[in-house]
Amino acid sequence: MRPSPFPAMECPVARSLAEVGDAWRVLILRDAFVGFRRFDEFEGNLGIAPNILAKRLHALVNDGLLTKRLYQQRPARYEYVPTAKAREFALVLAALATWGTRWLSPGGATVTLIDRTSGEPLEPSIVGTTTRRVCLVDNIAFQPGPKAGPDTLQRAARLKARKENMT
Amino acid sequence: MRPSPFPAMECPVARSLAEVGDAWRVLILRDAFVGFRRFDEFEGNLGIAPNILAKRLHALVNDGLLTKRLYQQRPARYEYVPTAKAREFALVLAALATWGTRWLSPGGATVTLIDRTSGEPLEPSIVGTTTRRVCLVDNIAFQPGPKAGPDTLQRAARLKARKENMT
Repeated sequence: MRPSPFPAMECPVARSLAEVGDAWRVLILRDAFVGFRRFDEFEGNLGIAPNILAKRLHALVNDGLLTKRLYQQRPARYEYVPTAKAREFALVLAALATWGTRWLSPGGATVTLIDRTSGEPLEPSIVGTTTRRVCLVDNIAFQPGPKAGPDTLQRAARLKARKENMT
Repeated sequence: MRPSPFPAMECPVARSLAEVGDAWRVLILRDAFVGFRRFDEFEGNLGIAPNILAKRLHALVNDGLLTKRLYQQRPARYEYVPTAKAREFALVLAALATWGTRWLSPGGATVTLIDRTSGEPLEPSIVGTTTRRVCLVDNIAFQPGPKAGPDTLQRAARLKARKENMT
């Protein structure tokens, strides 16, 4: 699902959703991130119909998330390698995994995140860019950035007005 | 879109997608997180059809992400307040916003994340649970957790076998 109004929205969350707001795409990116590369691997892991998988892989290549690489000639066979853009998407994957474990896995963690080198367990956090201090969720604010356009500014103004009316 | 196989998957990313793998839901959660509460506010912000919005709000209440609260009688009017589950989803929102700014906003940041109290700019990071050290994306590994079932273990075994074949 790629609802048409989203790419035009100024909000970076909406722009991300226009590109990855499809659950199959996210699961393919998850598999590519951990190291799977081939059509039959994605197919087996996901239980996805081959025509749907082929469409998604093609689109992910087009959008610069996967690179197609020949790994066998006669017959030609390709594997799909995640780009830097896809690898950085791991922050979204980690946040989804942690939230899904916390709120949707009453039995406990089926998957954990660890540092590949040290083995230390990991968790996604929101930290200050200079102090590196962790910011609690209720302290996070989204505010217009340097390139905010009319949509973003009007949204911020509506939010400000509503908060003033409430007090 | 809520593809039916996802909730049954053991992976916490897939479970999260079964619940929030719909772009409208994510945008409603975004709006609720920043402080919007009412039907007409969501409608105006998102440009979403009222019947679609009503369906999404109802489902979000059912799934424990929003709480419905009467704010006016005659006529009865409700507002939608994010639960703790929805507020913790802000880590996913922040990761989507940062990725969307980095990769899909060539003009620059339309939105920034700041600490509401100190004003410091924020960024999502993956950190060690004890050392608090930032883990680089390529060092993150997803591994079977204490409650891993057969799906997760088979996936891990396939990944291990593929890595051994490659070397």
